[in-house]
Amino acid sequence: MLRKKTISTLLLLLLVTLGWSQSGPTLILTEGGARNLREALGQAPLLDKTFAQTVSEVDAAMLRGIDVPIPKDLAGGYTHEQHKSNFFILQKAGVLFQVTQEEKYAQYVKEMLFAYKDLYPTVDRHPATRSYARGKFFWQCLNDANWLVYMSQAYDCIYHWLPEKDRKTLNQELFRPYADFLSVENPQFFNRIHNHSTWGNAAVGMIGLVMDDDELVQRALYGLDQAVPGDQIRDNDGGLITLPGQNKAGFLAQIDEAFSPDGYYTEGPYYQRYAMYPFLIFAEALANKRPELGIVAYRDSVLIKGVYALLNLTNTEGEFFPINDAQKGMSVRSRELVTAVSFAYHFGQQDASLLSVVALQNRVPLDDTGLSTASAMATGEAEPFTPASILLRDGASGTEGAIGVLRSGDFTLVMKYAKHGMGHGHFDKLSFSYYHGSREVFQDYGAARWVNVEQKDGGGYLTENRTWAKQTVAHNTLVIDRTSQFEANTKTADQFHGEPYLFMADNPRVQLMSAKDREGYADIVLHRTMALLRSDASQAPLVLDLFRVESATGVHTYELPFYFQGEFMQSNFPIEAEAVLRPMGEEYGYQHLWAEAKGTVSEKTATVNWLQDDVFYTWTAAASADDQVTFGRIGANDPKFNLRRDPVFLWQREGEGPTVFASVTEAHGRYSAVTERVESAYSQIKALNILSDSEEYTAVEIIHQDGTTWVFAMANQDSDPNTPHTLAVGGNSIAWTGPVHYSKIDSER
Amino acid sequence: MLRKKTISTLLLLLLVTLGWSQSGPTLILTEGGARNLREALGQAPLLDKTFAQTVSEVDAAMLRGIDVPIPKDLAGGYTHEQHKSNFFILQKAGVLFQVTQEEKYAQYVKEMLFAYKDLYPTVDRHPATRSYARGKFFWQCLNDANWLVYMSQAYDCIYHWLPEKDRKTLNQELFRPYADFLSVENPQFFNRIHNHSTWGNAAVGMIGLVMDDDELVQRALYGLDQAVPGDQIRDNDGGLITLPGQNKAGFLAQIDEAFSPDGYYTEGPYYQRYAMYPFLIFAEALANKRPELGIVAYRDSVLIKGVYALLNLTNTEGEFFPINDAQKGMSVRSRELVTAVSFAYHFGQQDASLLSVVALQNRVPLDDTGLSTASAMATGEAEPFTPASILLRDGASGTEGAIGVLRSGDFTLVMKYAKHGMGHGHFDKLSFSYYHGSREVFQDYGAARWVNVEQKDGGGYLTENRTWAKQTVAHNTLVIDRTSQFEANTKTADQFHGEPYLFMADNPRVQLMSAKDREGYADIVLHRTMALLRSDASQAPLVLDLFRVESATGVHTYELPFYFQGEFMQSNFPIEAEAVLRPMGEEYGYQHLWAEAKGTVSEKTATVNWLQDDVFYTWTAAASADDQVTFGRIGANDPKFNLRRDPVFLWQREGEGPTVFASVTEAHGRYSAVTERVESAYSQIKALNILSDSEEYTAVEIIHQDGTTWVFAMANQDSDPNTPHTLAVGGNSIAWTGPVHYSKIDSER
Repeated sequence: MLRKKTISTLLLLLLVTLGWSQSGPTLILTEGGARNLREALGQAPLLDKTFAQTVSEVDAAMLRGIDVPIPKDLAGGYTHEQHKSNFFILQKAGVLFQVTQEEKYAQYVKEMLFAYKDLYPTVDRHPATRSYARGKFFWQCLNDANWLVYMSQAYDCIYHWLPEKDRKTLNQELFRPYADFLSVENPQFFNRIHNHSTWGNAAVGMIGLVMDDDELVQRALYGLDQAVPGDQIRDNDGGLITLPGQNKAGFLAQIDEAFSPDGYYTEGPYYQRYAMYPFLIFAEALANKRPELGIVAYRDSVLIKGVYALLNLTNTEGEFFPINDAQKGMSVRSRELVTAVSFAYHFGQQDASLLSVVALQNRVPLDDTGLSTASAMATGEAEPFTPASILLRDGASGTEGAIGVLRSGDFTLVMKYAKHGMGHGHFDKLSFSYYHGSREVFQDYGAARWVNVEQKDGGGYLTENRTWAKQTVAHNTLVIDRTSQFEANTKTADQFHGEPYLFMADNPRVQLMSAKDREGYADIVLHRTMALLRSDASQAPLVLDLFRVESATGVHTYELPFYFQGEFMQSNFPIEAEAVLRPMGEEYGYQHLWAEAKGTVSEKTATVNWLQDDVFYTWTAAASADDQVTFGRIGANDPKFNLRRDPVFLWQREGEGPTVFASVTEAHGRYSAVTERVESAYSQIKALNILSDSEEYTAVEIIHQDGTTWVFAMANQDSDPNTPHTLAVGGNSIAWTGPVHYSKIDSER
Repeated sequence: MLRKKTISTLLLLLLVTLGWSQSGPTLILTEGGARNLREALGQAPLLDKTFAQTVSEVDAAMLRGIDVPIPKDLAGGYTHEQHKSNFFILQKAGVLFQVTQEEKYAQYVKEMLFAYKDLYPTVDRHPATRSYARGKFFWQCLNDANWLVYMSQAYDCIYHWLPEKDRKTLNQELFRPYADFLSVENPQFFNRIHNHSTWGNAAVGMIGLVMDDDELVQRALYGLDQAVPGDQIRDNDGGLITLPGQNKAGFLAQIDEAFSPDGYYTEGPYYQRYAMYPFLIFAEALANKRPELGIVAYRDSVLIKGVYALLNLTNTEGEFFPINDAQKGMSVRSRELVTAVSFAYHFGQQDASLLSVVALQNRVPLDDTGLSTASAMATGEAEPFTPASILLRDGASGTEGAIGVLRSGDFTLVMKYAKHGMGHGHFDKLSFSYYHGSREVFQDYGAARWVNVEQKDGGGYLTENRTWAKQTVAHNTLVIDRTSQFEANTKTADQFHGEPYLFMADNPRVQLMSAKDREGYADIVLHRTMALLRSDASQAPLVLDLFRVESATGVHTYELPFYFQGEFMQSNFPIEAEAVLRPMGEEYGYQHLWAEAKGTVSEKTATVNWLQDDVFYTWTAAASADDQVTFGRIGANDPKFNLRRDPVFLWQREGEGPTVFASVTEAHGRYSAVTERVESAYSQIKALNILSDSEEYTAVEIIHQDGTTWVFAMANQDSDPNTPHTLAVGGNSIAWTGPVHYSKIDSER
């Protein structure tokens, strides 16, 4: 007994003598990592740059002093922004303490954490009442979880430097109660399969790892064994709190459920980007502190696949496709992707093409992962990252639809036939968008929201997000009977997904994706095929769009919107402008569309030609008698100017039974305002004719101005690559094998 | 006698023996110049680059063969573009012959000129009848004059190489008749004071210089001694053929009349750019072949001043302010400015700051002037070109109004109080535009036209240019009683000009321009003062706008439009959106404005806050009771979508007697779609109050959010810098000397 006590005393003495520097952080920055970073300074330029920026940012914040205001404002407002700024800065200050070993940083972290400790017991839930899970320092628990994810890292960096009694104080009076608040006191927030909960899980788990509080870690990994109170069914975005059939929760369940086997996250890249940070930062912490869990390899390394999925869901500027509720402009430059890309490099296969993305980001995380990428870049290992034509399957087992991306040169075609996307989903199955470089030729509207901009309803989702942005007519997909898919019911929509039919990206001359939808409209089967066709005749690919409708009963109104941008040049059919502008309808988004002009298609082929920036575009469609084209503009019933006044044309048809909307869009020519020279102002496509259309087959001919004619034919019910097909077309017949046929035909025909 | 003949024979023999290379071009490229260029190749990178581009361009054209089609199309159409392409290429081919001495180029020039010689007698006037002066190869003489200006240069380069009989053929069967066509057969085109005639004069003069045809040179310099047939009063743009009091014509008269002493050209920079080429290229030819004329020094070197005026009429991207009929995007990169800037360097003071503009242009003329700039750049002499705050007086003697440009950091404020601008003028006296970098914060619409884009009415001016773009309401200036200035009568407007009152650019904290207009509206005096105010409190200047109206009689409706761009964020007054959009009026441009929403100002200070790209802007106005603000959008009564759907808000007041519209606009903060962080979303200006307003004085106070208050006062009738002033303001009085007072006042006040 005596001996044991003596040894303990000696050990204690030893520890006290060696001081804090003998024990370092263990969570994200590790003790060894801090030392390596310190030693690498001056040798890896991007590391030096990030380090210098961080020093200047933190030093400036320290000069301004500590400001921990009583929570009051919504996003964009002062108290919200201040608390947000605090957690970003403190995480950095913690890192600087470890890298520089200057105690002023540790002191700053300590003081601010104590200020929060003093604040914590004095505040109840945030005064703003709009969230389904009101926070403490912020209006929603989500932001409080952000706070804890970052503050855990700051705390970890000074944990071993703090006197035991300070640790005890912070653990008992701030962090453990706060972790309980975000979990047991808010099960409707913590126990969902949702990005909100991922943040909650990571927050609770990370502070648990810092404090060596295994109860919290278990709670984070496996969820609460606690039912959500029955009266909370939906969050304030309309998403379900408990998913149908959901029987697990916690971080591992999030990984299981959130990602498809291809790493796609069902809410779309904007939210995937947001969700990736807690996934990856908690994974990094677990990799460091619980290596036995094997978190990086978990589910066939799906977290790393998720990073690649994100990188492939971008335009040529690295901006994410604005699928579902997404603010445009978010990109691989975001702080979350800075973490993600270095994570994927470090914990993955050291893929040198990721380094070119890091170069674009122009900074690295100050941890082991950033050290890896910065060092590799310093030795010149970067290779170009070329996003691919890719099929990203949706659903935990990859069987619930997909996002298709076709790329050809500077052009990108994106089609959504995935799951609805939960509370942030849009009613836009089979919709597409088309990019020329980073220019949106046919745009997806994205969300009606200015994130964090207080003037716009506190920075949250605007009313028009629901009444406009989510509706079917706000997307480049067919609207039937002026109603949204699933009658705009999220709960119903969430049960279904698009049905992939074909995805072919191997042949650069014919890339194609094709999918069906059977549930969006009752008793109607939609089948859309979109292809990027290349020929020697054109510098740009042709976008072929075949949108079939099989309707069992009755007469329907079909409207297919094309959200083009730029200046209308001409159409080959007469249009009549409205003398007075009226909304196109009263609901399902139509109340937000002004009808500007109406055109009645007079030829078998209808064309619309426009100029966007310095390039001409022409849409060429195979029209039916009595087809109409309405030119519209967003902005009706929008009293607060929450919507962009963007243009659209809607291809309209009324009729019974099956029908097909076939069109070809071509980018061509150029216009310079400096030389005032025009090149190729007109399309090379002279006509598009439907040769055949049935449940079994669809065939069209594309006649070029130079007289050449191409035939595109496909089997609508058999995607087997080995099935032989024969189709009578005019007096001839064409034969081919596999689902698709595309060839130039003799000009004599 | 014998001896004389022998010498002549010997001389002739000598010339024949030495061949063509002994005589070179003399017009633009000179014989010595060609040799110098040849020798400089490989030593001046920009020269090499331009040369290589030219070779590849001309070689490619030569491969395509000669195509001289029968004239048929309007601008943008095939025959128009082909003839245009021909003259550009041939001028370059001529230069290449001289520099490379490769006869294939001379042969190509010769063959094409002979093709034109064959075509010429077969064509009458162009079949399109829309021009007041129909051309031969083109729909208007203007383009034919372009042709001749360029073809003269090509012809000059092979003139001494051609056999005598070929020269005689071309002179007699193509060039002399063509020069006569453009002058004596079209006096309504040739004898104007107008950019069209400048081209005509240069064309006739240059071919005269090539052929040593002194009659043509005299005609070019001094005009035709021939009256314009009385039935041609206006051109097809509405401009007068004969100006009031015009008693001279020809090139020297153009120089006398077109430019103000500051080098400003009354049609504005877009047309000045276009007009500069014939001015400078003919001047260069005259400098080479008629040095005794002293053309460069003519009128105190006004041609060189003109180049500097152009460079100062640009935004930070080098794009010209779109004053009057102007297509946006035209810039210092244009081919005309490539000639102009090297001309100004070579014939002027070798100003090293011009070289940085040449660097932006990234090419040089292949002649003596380009050799000068390319060589100077090769030796690293370039200095930055910084456009200045500048007053550019209008009118031949500088007494007919002005364009004012104030610059502060990244911001540029432009105000027009010049002459109307002839046929291309807009009814926009006292209008302004405001730039943040190259971003248009308050835009000038420019012209309703897509130059050379055939789809848009052949590339000419669109109907809406007259019904919209020229009208007062299309500009950021006061509209009274919903009528345009001068009731939109060009003839009347052309007789008047703005009245400069003050221009102060010496003090970077208070830059100011102020002008009056007494004729735009009967019995009403308008007085607008615009200032860029800098204080330590703000990173951006404040735009102070004081628009006074002195009206002798009756009740008037005043409307002051602000063509802002971007997304409306909020106003401090309630606005009510229209359920149905109707045009705001029936004439004077109002028929093209949709009224989208109406606001009634409820506070003494009215604010509108918006986001453009990533910057916030706030307009703060001193409102009167019952002031209204209508939010509108361009596009009503526009059946062909010829107008951009841009937004505006109009500040509206109805009343009797004198009134003042005072506002302050501030750029502030920033929003990033990547970080989603908001900085300074609100203005630093809390209130703007009118302290005093009379015929003699106007004073306002600008109250900042931080509590500081600034007073701006000015004398409205006395701009003498030495006059002392005293003004009672509230209970106090302020005293100052000179026209303007601006100071921070005690916060106790």
